[in-house]
Amino acid sequence: MTDYKAPLRDMQFVLSEVIQLEDHYRNLGLDIDNDFINAVMSAGADFAQRELAPFNRQGDELGAIFKDGQVTTPDGFKQAYENYCDNGWASFTAPEEFSGQNLPNSLATPFHEMCMSANLSWRTYPGLTEGNTLAIYKHGNEELKNTYLEKMVNGTWAGTMCLTEPHAGTDLGLLRTKAIPNSDGSYKVSGTKIFITAGEHDLTENIVHLVLARLPDAPSGSKGISLFVVPKYIPDADGNPGERNAVSCGSIEHKMGIKASATAVLNFDEAKGWLVGEAHNGLACMFTMMNDARFQVGLQGLGLAEMAFQGGLEYAQERLQSRSLTGSKYPDKPADPIIVHPDVRRMLLTQKALTEGCRMMSYYVATLLDLERFESAPEKHKENGQLLAFFIPIVKSFLTDVSQEVSSLGVQIYGGHGFIREWGMEQLMRDSRILMIYEGTNGIQALDFIGRKNLHNKGRTLNKLVEKIRSFCRTQESKLNHLIMPLQEILSEWQSIFKHAQTKAHENPEEIGAMSVDFLQYSAYVCLGYFWLQMAAKAQEQIDAGSSDVDFYLSKITTAEFYFSRILPRTQTHKAGLLSGADNLMKLDSEHFSF
Amino acid sequence: MTDYKAPLRDMQFVLSEVIQLEDHYRNLGLDIDNDFINAVMSAGADFAQRELAPFNRQGDELGAIFKDGQVTTPDGFKQAYENYCDNGWASFTAPEEFSGQNLPNSLATPFHEMCMSANLSWRTYPGLTEGNTLAIYKHGNEELKNTYLEKMVNGTWAGTMCLTEPHAGTDLGLLRTKAIPNSDGSYKVSGTKIFITAGEHDLTENIVHLVLARLPDAPSGSKGISLFVVPKYIPDADGNPGERNAVSCGSIEHKMGIKASATAVLNFDEAKGWLVGEAHNGLACMFTMMNDARFQVGLQGLGLAEMAFQGGLEYAQERLQSRSLTGSKYPDKPADPIIVHPDVRRMLLTQKALTEGCRMMSYYVATLLDLERFESAPEKHKENGQLLAFFIPIVKSFLTDVSQEVSSLGVQIYGGHGFIREWGMEQLMRDSRILMIYEGTNGIQALDFIGRKNLHNKGRTLNKLVEKIRSFCRTQESKLNHLIMPLQEILSEWQSIFKHAQTKAHENPEEIGAMSVDFLQYSAYVCLGYFWLQMAAKAQEQIDAGSSDVDFYLSKITTAEFYFSRILPRTQTHKAGLLSGADNLMKLDSEHFSF
Repeated sequence: MTDYKAPLRDMQFVLSEVIQLEDHYRNLGLDIDNDFINAVMSAGADFAQRELAPFNRQGDELGAIFKDGQVTTPDGFKQAYENYCDNGWASFTAPEEFSGQNLPNSLATPFHEMCMSANLSWRTYPGLTEGNTLAIYKHGNEELKNTYLEKMVNGTWAGTMCLTEPHAGTDLGLLRTKAIPNSDGSYKVSGTKIFITAGEHDLTENIVHLVLARLPDAPSGSKGISLFVVPKYIPDADGNPGERNAVSCGSIEHKMGIKASATAVLNFDEAKGWLVGEAHNGLACMFTMMNDARFQVGLQGLGLAEMAFQGGLEYAQERLQSRSLTGSKYPDKPADPIIVHPDVRRMLLTQKALTEGCRMMSYYVATLLDLERFESAPEKHKENGQLLAFFIPIVKSFLTDVSQEVSSLGVQIYGGHGFIREWGMEQLMRDSRILMIYEGTNGIQALDFIGRKNLHNKGRTLNKLVEKIRSFCRTQESKLNHLIMPLQEILSEWQSIFKHAQTKAHENPEEIGAMSVDFLQYSAYVCLGYFWLQMAAKAQEQIDAGSSDVDFYLSKITTAEFYFSRILPRTQTHKAGLLSGADNLMKLDSEHFSF
Repeated sequence: MTDYKAPLRDMQFVLSEVIQLEDHYRNLGLDIDNDFINAVMSAGADFAQRELAPFNRQGDELGAIFKDGQVTTPDGFKQAYENYCDNGWASFTAPEEFSGQNLPNSLATPFHEMCMSANLSWRTYPGLTEGNTLAIYKHGNEELKNTYLEKMVNGTWAGTMCLTEPHAGTDLGLLRTKAIPNSDGSYKVSGTKIFITAGEHDLTENIVHLVLARLPDAPSGSKGISLFVVPKYIPDADGNPGERNAVSCGSIEHKMGIKASATAVLNFDEAKGWLVGEAHNGLACMFTMMNDARFQVGLQGLGLAEMAFQGGLEYAQERLQSRSLTGSKYPDKPADPIIVHPDVRRMLLTQKALTEGCRMMSYYVATLLDLERFESAPEKHKENGQLLAFFIPIVKSFLTDVSQEVSSLGVQIYGGHGFIREWGMEQLMRDSRILMIYEGTNGIQALDFIGRKNLHNKGRTLNKLVEKIRSFCRTQESKLNHLIMPLQEILSEWQSIFKHAQTKAHENPEEIGAMSVDFLQYSAYVCLGYFWLQMAAKAQEQIDAGSSDVDFYLSKITTAEFYFSRILPRTQTHKAGLLSGADNLMKLDSEHFSF
């Protein structure tokens, strides 16, 4: 099994060389220099490699254990969590007034990626607390903030998001959990929530559930949903966990993957809760967390893809099998390492191009999350918000699709060993499979992308982005023309495809659903082309400037070339699909799919 | 969880209406009519649904249990195996002289598909015995045949194929297991074999291992490998299991899927064995089983895809979530079934088009297997053999890729429930993942396809097939022109791509490896286009003839249209990849994939 090693050189290339994080922070008035950035990354790598990675396989084998309403996490999880809190990772991005460090998302992102590579199940426990904190911070009243935030910020208490019910997943308008007002301003919350990540565990002294429920006078559908804080233990007068609330864990799910992450069924039986934000405005409050939560799921995809690439590469360099098609490359060995074979290289380069491209994309989007928090100029803030909104569904869905593909390639590179649990690759595939589903299925992301993020604003964000990419291309040297020219061509195609989408959408709303996934994927590959061009351009610049790290930079350029030759053409299949219209999907009667 | 229901109507359409099995049998001099065909299918469906399907989930949970060198199969497996033998399924295709029924492969194929849908793990136990029987029948001497065949044919004894060693998977030339001659004509076989499917179990009183090993005077590499029969119990003078042979099961693997199938490590410690066929000719003897074994793995893919489609469809018809984009379709229900949503339909139609297309392909290839056995005219036999050789790597790799895609779509259609074990969809994904690896990885199939099956004969088979498809197209009515025209275009493209491949292959053998997988996948989608056209044409013919089963036939035509609009364009991505050449794969130094 491959030991996780944080890809610090690649992270540093993206952050310091391409994105130029130091300048970005200076522009935001943040005093964070490269030394600090590197110190954070190095401490993060140490934590992920030493505290998390060693417990990942074992966590998968043991799973989270449910007994008598309690969940026990696997060995090592509690210790890692304590270390995580003690070292200030829990409070990293949290507001200063509640003892947070208020550090930018872009600085937390590489650390989060490392945790996800090393032990995704573990990461799901603290994973939702940050978004939860944000929702209470933005929408809770002073009392709620004072009661909950400091303990959540320092990690003493953890948070969950309780949305799904057995009959209400994608369609939250169907949810039935009820909240009845008490005379003291609190509410009695009753109902059953399922699929609650980290809904019960032994890592913290309290768990703060954010629960969507309906008030008695609520309108039906999604406009009648309110948000409540429902703690596992009701804080006493001193703010410590007091009386046990009437929320109990009925069971945890037996799952394909992330087995050490407890996915709970929670029963609320007149549990005491407090309203967060306005009545009936719960979905909007919950959506405060959504950008961050969806970004984090995309990042989970990146983390698993990185681990699968590391595993695949190590095995391909070590496994001796057959000779190169052009004759022995290592005649002193009984066979050549399989990395000499073109098709193994195709798999590895697909892993590398997708993983490193997605790293570039997600770190860039992390800087948009920074701008969301720290940019004060209203016009810039608005423009950034639109760009962020544009990229979030791409990051959530594309990076998770990539994760499944790259981890499956990892299995394939290992051959038979890929299917065996001890070797670790199959776990990555199993763990990654949920990412395409939770936090809004990838199909829902695609509808959000084409509808709210593109058709709704008449393509303004898309066209601005195209202009931005074109300007970037114009500043580049002719050495990269073999990348720039196909990218420019596909930008025009992208715009004309979007125009086609606008026309069709007017004809019939089903046309939107019929092209949504292909349109998102097409767009994602175009964007990834842009990110690869940015990396290739920076690499070329460093070579031209006489850098001594030529091998690294040449590897970037070669991978960019691979991306343009062998991955970007996937757009052509998506194009054909989305231009083919809704009729081929809609005309078959629902009863006639099988006989 | 969805109960398996054998897709008899679809099977009957392919076999009786499109392939016209009765005529095919008549041409081969076999006296098998439609009544018999239907009786076999109906008995097969009954067996798969009642004896196998109920034990599939439980088998996954319990797994095969290894203790003290013995393997216990999960509950229900032994009973099903007895029933399978008692009802004559074990002897179905076996030679009459050893009490087999000598029935054609095309008649066994739907039954095998049903078993694989219902319980793939179970199917792996009898799965290799048939090929094993064939190898001994073709290459063994009279004594071996008389000792082993009858018991293997009636299922009293089972068979395995022992090829892989820890350091020798794809590259069998590296294998080290030794065979030293004894004075009585037998051999002492010593070595360790891994990944032996059904290598140890409790279903039969004896297990007959076919083992690849080296004689003392063997040349190195793959030309020094011989084939041996090594029984678990050495048959005594009466032909009953006698002395325990020195082959023992050291452990079984912990795997991602097919957990109820025992994947054994077998230790041979001077075990007694008998040579099969000529010395040093073991690989050739083993390859006798290869067409059938690879076909069977493709069929496993079809079986799982069918089950995933059934599951996805049932859930999509029942799960209520959100309203149709064009307004409520079921206003009396709290929400519409998700099959109203275009993207859910895209997933279901992808499942349907791929699964039913692959069924057509594999049943057609099963008729080529019939011809291999029953066709006596030498010229026809040779031509058929080439076509069969052409299709085998496609069936093995394409159907198993499809299986992974279709089962993953099944998971996605279920949303969160897809990830939960109780619902059964995730098991299909896990079970199917090995199919792309065993019996020669899909990468190896692609090398076989482009090299031995196409370049080696200068495209003769490919060009003949293209001619055959063109003639078929010429006989069709203009009603199907919207399918015929794109197919004819892509046939020309296929030929010119192959010419390009020939040119590049002459330049540098690495070009072959660099385009192999894309070339196979491109070819497979073209072939599937042909099979879908055949089905659409038959459906149109039946409609024109006034059939009362119009809904079924229209569904076929609609699915063919979907295939041509949304699946066939995948060729364009593969085309770009394979035309892009080897350089983008080969130029990166093996040490520079990561830093």
